[in-house]
Amino acid sequence: MLPVDPDRFLQDLHALRRFGAAGTGKGVSRPGYSEPDIAARDWLAGRMRDAGLAPRFDPVGSLFGLAEGRSLLLGSHSDSQPEGGWLDGALGVIAGLEVARAAREAGGPPISVVSFEDEEGRFGVTTGSSVWAGNQTLEGADALHDPSGLSFAEARARFGDRRGDFVDPAQFSGYIEMHIEQGPLLDATGEALGVVEAIVGIRDMHVTFTGQQNHAGTTPMHLRRDAFQALSAFNAALSERFANVVTPQTVWTIGHVALHPNAPSIVPGRVRFSMQWRDGDADRLDRMEQIIRDTAADIAASHWMDLAYGPMLGLDPVTMDRGLRGALEQAAQAEAPGRWRVMPSGALHDATNVARLMPVAMLFVPSIGGISHDFAEDTAEADLVTGLRALARAAASVAG
Amino acid sequence: MLPVDPDRFLQDLHALRRFGAAGTGKGVSRPGYSEPDIAARDWLAGRMRDAGLAPRFDPVGSLFGLAEGRSLLLGSHSDSQPEGGWLDGALGVIAGLEVARAAREAGGPPISVVSFEDEEGRFGVTTGSSVWAGNQTLEGADALHDPSGLSFAEARARFGDRRGDFVDPAQFSGYIEMHIEQGPLLDATGEALGVVEAIVGIRDMHVTFTGQQNHAGTTPMHLRRDAFQALSAFNAALSERFANVVTPQTVWTIGHVALHPNAPSIVPGRVRFSMQWRDGDADRLDRMEQIIRDTAADIAASHWMDLAYGPMLGLDPVTMDRGLRGALEQAAQAEAPGRWRVMPSGALHDATNVARLMPVAMLFVPSIGGISHDFAEDTAEADLVTGLRALARAAASVAG
Repeated sequence: MLPVDPDRFLQDLHALRRFGAAGTGKGVSRPGYSEPDIAARDWLAGRMRDAGLAPRFDPVGSLFGLAEGRSLLLGSHSDSQPEGGWLDGALGVIAGLEVARAAREAGGPPISVVSFEDEEGRFGVTTGSSVWAGNQTLEGADALHDPSGLSFAEARARFGDRRGDFVDPAQFSGYIEMHIEQGPLLDATGEALGVVEAIVGIRDMHVTFTGQQNHAGTTPMHLRRDAFQALSAFNAALSERFANVVTPQTVWTIGHVALHPNAPSIVPGRVRFSMQWRDGDADRLDRMEQIIRDTAADIAASHWMDLAYGPMLGLDPVTMDRGLRGALEQAAQAEAPGRWRVMPSGALHDATNVARLMPVAMLFVPSIGGISHDFAEDTAEADLVTGLRALARAAASVAG
Repeated sequence: MLPVDPDRFLQDLHALRRFGAAGTGKGVSRPGYSEPDIAARDWLAGRMRDAGLAPRFDPVGSLFGLAEGRSLLLGSHSDSQPEGGWLDGALGVIAGLEVARAAREAGGPPISVVSFEDEEGRFGVTTGSSVWAGNQTLEGADALHDPSGLSFAEARARFGDRRGDFVDPAQFSGYIEMHIEQGPLLDATGEALGVVEAIVGIRDMHVTFTGQQNHAGTTPMHLRRDAFQALSAFNAALSERFANVVTPQTVWTIGHVALHPNAPSIVPGRVRFSMQWRDGDADRLDRMEQIIRDTAADIAASHWMDLAYGPMLGLDPVTMDRGLRGALEQAAQAEAPGRWRVMPSGALHDATNVARLMPVAMLFVPSIGGISHDFAEDTAEADLVTGLRALARAAASVAG
């Protein structure tokens, strides 16, 4: 068992949330490539250096703290949702830092740590680890834009000359990511830890309907080409058509809507909206995509709309590595006997991408009330420390 | 017949569109209280002074050019939609200026001109003329906010010490507003002029559904309180329930939608949207309001939403003054024999408010393709001049 220091761990965790502190509870606003995100990474690089790790920014701003030689990689991401919690991503980074630091102080084994950039998808889905793992090319990512119109190429240039080359994944024996559950299960059952068996897959794309902008007083209803009405009809039709295909675990979301010109007295001529869907079965994700495209085409025809799609981003469902998962199960049983479970992850994580490069596993701690992607997100500190100890125990057993 | 100068009129009309020129065709972006709007009003005050009229800004930024003694008032508004045309409002202001200038040069009759502020409703509906006419108090208007959060009080303060007291409406014998049709009728029939018989009424309010913001991957569909889904269901239910109440002339529009936090990976916890409806029958407007409120309450209950309403803004349908309308009909027949018609106005105008204070009438010229509230809005210059001549003829007959 590595001699982790729970106080030092919690101090660093609280220190990190000062970057982009929202002023509402412990909430943070630290989207990828924002000023607080970059400042937090500079702070984190210093903490890595203090711990005897070599900090290295890659071309997209993902920050590695490298141990010498072949090592186990721990980590997660330190960017947040626009209105996010203090633990989503940050927990896995700081827990990884503490375990790597403790291992260094104990004279081994070699453990590295990483904070991937833009896991929260300002520019897509888990952008930093996706590029690192080759799920998309750097050139392809550079053409992505955030909702304000900023390109990924412009965003990552903000890291200036901090950036070096991509880190060679061959130096890592595996990757373990500790994370808050972001769902209600562990909190509801009173369990302390969850060992992930698989991460559901996700698809994400933007859809645009273009009709005709016009005056909201003089344009009769039957002559309108109202983009909001098309969106509303699309949404209703989609829910009906999905009914025969989905399971209770399937989810889909229209979370971003941009009407144009978005004024009360104008029939909206254009709407661009996000369409995201998740499921544990890759075939089902494909069937849902076909239904989305068919439904959008039908609505475009019936509502006199032009139809366009943004790039499709997505990740297939991923099964965790049997060896790493076994180490986490043994550690969970040692740290929280009878108070842990094996479970799927309904949320997407950087581990999904990293699984293309090396064996991966994940460890969950409870989310109070199941609340996440919200300033109110939180976890009891005792549970955070239990997670840290289990992570350290598993890391020592597989890296040692 | 007053000796109006068509070239001078067209020169002033083109000069005005340089303020806020959009760079797309003749389009302008000159919303009320924007820098180009204020600069345009300063320019306009200078043109009034050159014409021998006394410029006067009222407390909300509406600009009058006053003739001495009791006078006929001509005009419209010089603010535009965020993406607006060069004629919507501007035509009536510059035509009024030219007629007043020609009358002054001819030694009478006394004719004044006005450009009302915020007709396009950045802060509500025809804000400037609404406050002048007492449809709402200045204190009530000051509490309104535009979509960016700017208050009306902050906006009107931008006029600084230009502002004097409200202009006494008792000095005006009546108000004639010339405007583009903003609809397809005159253009489709090849007619040059429309004499308005009545302006339809309008109601406008914002509605907010508040549910629960959460993670779009870990929150099962049946536990979501998704504000976008509530909006979509509300829209669909409303269209069904309206079917038995509306006529082919009735219109309703959801033109502004603000989802929160508006991110692809978050179940949206809140939506604020505009609900606007228009009809020639005040009772029907009331029945529609009741259906809107009942439907919103039903959707809030079925979708686990909290429900809130913004202030209700609205104007009842208004019939034009018989005497002024008769003068416009005679003038139309003289300037465009057999090529004019009597018609309703589906669009709202400042004349709706001014009708509380004095007799009002309106004259329409064609809109090419019926397009308005769009950079592409336009009218043939020959039709603009026909409108100017008819306005001058009518003004001379009623003010003389």
